[in-house]
Amino acid sequence: MSDRPAAPTTSAGRAPAGGVVPPLCMPLTEDRELDVASLERLCGHLLEAGVCGLFVNGSTGELAYHTDAFRLAALRVVRGVAGGSVPVLAGAVEMTTNRVVAQARAAREAGADAVVATVPFYTPTHPDEMADHFRAVRAAVDLPLWAYDIPGNVQRKLPVDVTAHLAADGVLAGLKDSSGDLDELRTLLHLTEASGARARGFTVLTGSETMADAALALGADGVVPGLGNVDPHGYVALYEAARRGDGREATAHQDRLRRLFALTRVGDPARIGAYSSALGAFKEALMQRGLLTTARTPAPLRPLTDPERAEVARLLAQAGLGPV
Amino acid sequence: MSDRPAAPTTSAGRAPAGGVVPPLCMPLTEDRELDVASLERLCGHLLEAGVCGLFVNGSTGELAYHTDAFRLAALRVVRGVAGGSVPVLAGAVEMTTNRVVAQARAAREAGADAVVATVPFYTPTHPDEMADHFRAVRAAVDLPLWAYDIPGNVQRKLPVDVTAHLAADGVLAGLKDSSGDLDELRTLLHLTEASGARARGFTVLTGSETMADAALALGADGVVPGLGNVDPHGYVALYEAARRGDGREATAHQDRLRRLFALTRVGDPARIGAYSSALGAFKEALMQRGLLTTARTPAPLRPLTDPERAEVARLLAQAGLGPV
Amino acid sequence: MSDRPAAPTTSAGRAPAGGVVPPLCMPLTEDRELDVASLERLCGHLLEAGVCGLFVNGSTGELAYHTDAFRLAALRVVRGVAGGSVPVLAGAVEMTTNRVVAQARAAREAGADAVVATVPFYTPTHPDEMADHFRAVRAAVDLPLWAYDIPGNVQRKLPVDVTAHLAADGVLAGLKDSSGDLDELRTLLHLTEASGARARGFTVLTGSETMADAALALGADGVVPGLGNVDPHGYVALYEAARRGDGREATAHQDRLRRLFALTRVGDPARIGAYSSALGAFKEALMQRGLLTTARTPAPLRPLTDPERAEVARLLAQAGLGPV
Amino acid sequence: MSDRPAAPTTSAGRAPAGGVVPPLCMPLTEDRELDVASLERLCGHLLEAGVCGLFVNGSTGELAYHTDAFRLAALRVVRGVAGGSVPVLAGAVEMTTNRVVAQARAAREAGADAVVATVPFYTPTHPDEMADHFRAVRAAVDLPLWAYDIPGNVQRKLPVDVTAHLAADGVLAGLKDSSGDLDELRTLLHLTEASGARARGFTVLTGSETMADAALALGADGVVPGLGNVDPHGYVALYEAARRGDGREATAHQDRLRRLFALTRVGDPARIGAYSSALGAFKEALMQRGLLTTARTPAPLRPLTDPERAEVARLLAQAGLGPV
Repeated sequence: MSDRPAAPTTSAGRAPAGGVVPPLCMPLTEDRELDVASLERLCGHLLEAGVCGLFVNGSTGELAYHTDAFRLAALRVVRGVAGGSVPVLAGAVEMTTNRVVAQARAAREAGADAVVATVPFYTPTHPDEMADHFRAVRAAVDLPLWAYDIPGNVQRKLPVDVTAHLAADGVLAGLKDSSGDLDELRTLLHLTEASGARARGFTVLTGSETMADAALALGADGVVPGLGNVDPHGYVALYEAARRGDGREATAHQDRLRRLFALTRVGDPARIGAYSSALGAFKEALMQRGLLTTARTPAPLRPLTDPERAEVARLLAQAGLGPV
Repeated sequence: MSDRPAAPTTSAGRAPAGGVVPPLCMPLTEDRELDVASLERLCGHLLEAGVCGLFVNGSTGELAYHTDAFRLAALRVVRGVAGGSVPVLAGAVEMTTNRVVAQARAAREAGADAVVATVPFYTPTHPDEMADHFRAVRAAVDLPLWAYDIPGNVQRKLPVDVTAHLAADGVLAGLKDSSGDLDELRTLLHLTEASGARARGFTVLTGSETMADAALALGADGVVPGLGNVDPHGYVALYEAARRGDGREATAHQDRLRRLFALTRVGDPARIGAYSSALGAFKEALMQRGLLTTARTPAPLRPLTDPERAEVARLLAQAGLGPV
Repeated sequence: MSDRPAAPTTSAGRAPAGGVVPPLCMPLTEDRELDVASLERLCGHLLEAGVCGLFVNGSTGELAYHTDAFRLAALRVVRGVAGGSVPVLAGAVEMTTNRVVAQARAAREAGADAVVATVPFYTPTHPDEMADHFRAVRAAVDLPLWAYDIPGNVQRKLPVDVTAHLAADGVLAGLKDSSGDLDELRTLLHLTEASGARARGFTVLTGSETMADAALALGADGVVPGLGNVDPHGYVALYEAARRGDGREATAHQDRLRRLFALTRVGDPARIGAYSSALGAFKEALMQRGLLTTARTPAPLRPLTDPERAEVARLLAQAGLGPV
Repeated sequence: MSDRPAAPTTSAGRAPAGGVVPPLCMPLTEDRELDVASLERLCGHLLEAGVCGLFVNGSTGELAYHTDAFRLAALRVVRGVAGGSVPVLAGAVEMTTNRVVAQARAAREAGADAVVATVPFYTPTHPDEMADHFRAVRAAVDLPLWAYDIPGNVQRKLPVDVTAHLAADGVLAGLKDSSGDLDELRTLLHLTEASGARARGFTVLTGSETMADAALALGADGVVPGLGNVDPHGYVALYEAARRGDGREATAHQDRLRRLFALTRVGDPARIGAYSSALGAFKEALMQRGLLTTARTPAPLRPLTDPERAEVARLLAQAGLGPV
């Protein structure tokens, strides 16, 4: 138990009830195939650092870029490394209900402990239909269901009252909040406290790498930090400090991690997309740390330049992060 | 040849070079399964009306709502009815390159004559990456590739200069423009005229039901009207008038169809989503015309109410559209 | 009367009923004061070209950049040059009702023939409140009131049904449509035709420089082209062709003017704002044509570079526009 | 000194260096004239509660709705009540530089201690031009200048690096952050700490009523709460707790104030605008507390209904706020 932080208990041993749950970066070979060895190495490093769960096929995990077969292969690798030691959350992110159900079923068969789905996208959806969507997915697949609120990617915010109702009714086991809206997060925490959903295990994780301390101070249970691939020990330390009520130390860790988050800005968004820039820098940093064999990103993302890679090295050095 | 309008020639018999190409509504049974008989009936009706192609698995065709297996089953039905008489375009709409390639390959095997793909969505993409995306899809699948510009659904507009370059390079065979931006459509027509792409067959179809006459007057080759499911004869007459240079008659048809387009507003968007409202009304109209057995929409879309259905009947009667 | 096109009759000699109504560029001295001589020269040139009205203190006229005193001084100069020959529309663009009323009253005293106001901005406004806004302005100031639909600048579109109601009730004398939405423009034309508002003189002008022929073909009465400062003869010729029903010639003029519109893209928006780029190029072109003494733009807009100015010269030469 | 909290020292006695600085609601008579008596009563109540400054002609103060003369009259009343006891910040919110300068000069003459301006609005502005804008305003008017970051109203966010540069150069004395983006607020605090601007007095106030405790915990100096008109004692208590480092108590106050903030949702946004709803509820609450004679809002805002007023009463009672 030594270097593993005391993780919150999980419901039926399957869904994380808090802590650091990194959204796994997805290592690729030079041919842009799944790099199994690197993925295993990355997962092992994260587990060793004390994370409380692994989230595969999230946005950081390039869910939008890989085929169904690839997604499932990745999930199986992660499942294998986790081996029941921590729960594995799997993204079942698709445009609407039927497609999410198909993803979720496949993820269940491949060993996911819980699935994570967004509101419908591509076409607009009424809030009542959003609720129906989650109800239908939960009814179709017997796994804990998490909502993934990421309006920047799916155009629509999951309204806080919809989340609260679904939590109260037991449809949702948790929320991954990547909206960046701490004010609404706070409202949700109040509503789910008042309804008893929190007491029954409804879990709230923030997807913000840069405001995790603030979210934890407001009562969030944990954090799903993309940057946590690069520095899991930093996030575990932040989380542990917050759990102890030591806000000052949590903030010190957060501020250091905020500086490291400059990784996501080393690429020139005017030359490559903002996504290529951020994702490419995470992968470059992981390669420099010896966890990934390549920093390859999937089509059609464009790679970093040499000066940008040098800047990654500089930021790692500044953060005191060397090869593992 | 009697009641079939003189369709523009198609390249290798595979892609429509203009005319009316309806994006097929997707008939469902009460159990929300594919209603093959209704789909066949609908396709037959459209062909009889003189459409120049069929577009399956477009937005009107509920692409976002159905599984891969369902999409392919629908494509095979449509392919069977078309029987080579007109080209069948199949949506290969997915989040990014690898997933689009998978869709396009399956569509090719199922008999599609061309595939239609959007810019990447869910994550942001640089314009240069958008170009790479289409190039990679075209390289991977030997079928004419159409771009589907639908920024309302995918958050980003396909920049006109990107489209023009891809047209000039022969990567794109055509564009379905659902952006509603006639100004940019005009610029694209000029650019592809100047590059010779138009002369080599690059085809431009507008997705606007309500401004088709204006788009045709600007030089577009045809129209992909969702409302064309309900009144294909109206759109064929509009197109034929425009082709003859009779703008006045084209406009008269368009104005009548604009009134019929009030179908999309019979549902209350505050009660159900805007998409449920529009799609539900199309299906209700098709059922009232005897083409569909049910007006069922997929999860999580909510149905019209009885008063809304009565309003559909009123609009059909006003447009002089009875059972077929 | 020779070279003046037959202008549509104006209501009470005060508001234009159509034709070309340029939104005047606002000449500045090197010290960024009002350049009266240049403004008089510009107005004279436009009148000689056959415009049917002058619009002062519009967006192209830098309404956002000048003080109330400056705005009124400019209006008085324009009024003096127009001398009753054509109506003078004055922008009364302010955040909400009371401030618009103050602007409109001052414009009336300074000799405006009509005033032009947007929906409220800075704070959000309900559609019913938008209607109240225009009603209150019209009640307070005895001048024809035009609505200025420019959602890109004021964040909210004037809903077509609100405009139609205000037209039917005689609150609005006209609309300047800078929304770029030809579909809604068409709906408005139908609604105001049906209500009798059009027959009673409700006038619709498009603010689009690049789709004026299309708007006129749909039934718009005229155009308010910023580019018309630079080439008023071109727009008058376009308008006259459209009025004669010669769509082909109108389109030929429009296509030439579309090429000239590349002026608005000579400046690098990444270096200076898009607005600085477009406005600076118009002024540079006017200076090169000998109409303005300087191409100065108001604070905080940044000027064009020398290469950008050379590109303006090239575009003018290509369009066959020399010194006047 | 008894019931006045120890306010941070102010620079030259003119700009607040933190604490609670309410953006004054603007009392109107039944005829929608300035209600001087009510404004004096409101200011007196706020001062008695221990606020550290008064902000007049902010968004809550209906800056968008009143004429220049009205704005100045209000400023003079506030100045009179403040009498030098606390600094008076005056909004100089206008579309661009020249107009802001005119507002700021008039505010200076009317006794403002500092002026507050947004980035340009109505037309788009490059970040470098935003910087020029603030520099020009500061150069023209010898008063401390505050930036007002309110992207929801002016469409554009003041980029954090622009603010940081202007703070480092001494152009800006402070920031009122109404962006709701705590992540960027944190970055700004770090940047201005690093540049020495904070040490030289650069002040950061949050405009968020509902996350003030979080902003103060991150290092903000104070809060500008619209809801502080209704319950100034609550915000002063929150601020004092935060200043003492008692985060738990600050949060308890904040949570109570969050419940009271439901005031802003008593009106039906589908019936009246969201702004009418929020502003109307604040005024209704102030009237019920005996501070305002009427709850009148300016044209074209629509009033609350009787049931909505009853809900205001209920919320005040729940918060323990009776007549003063």
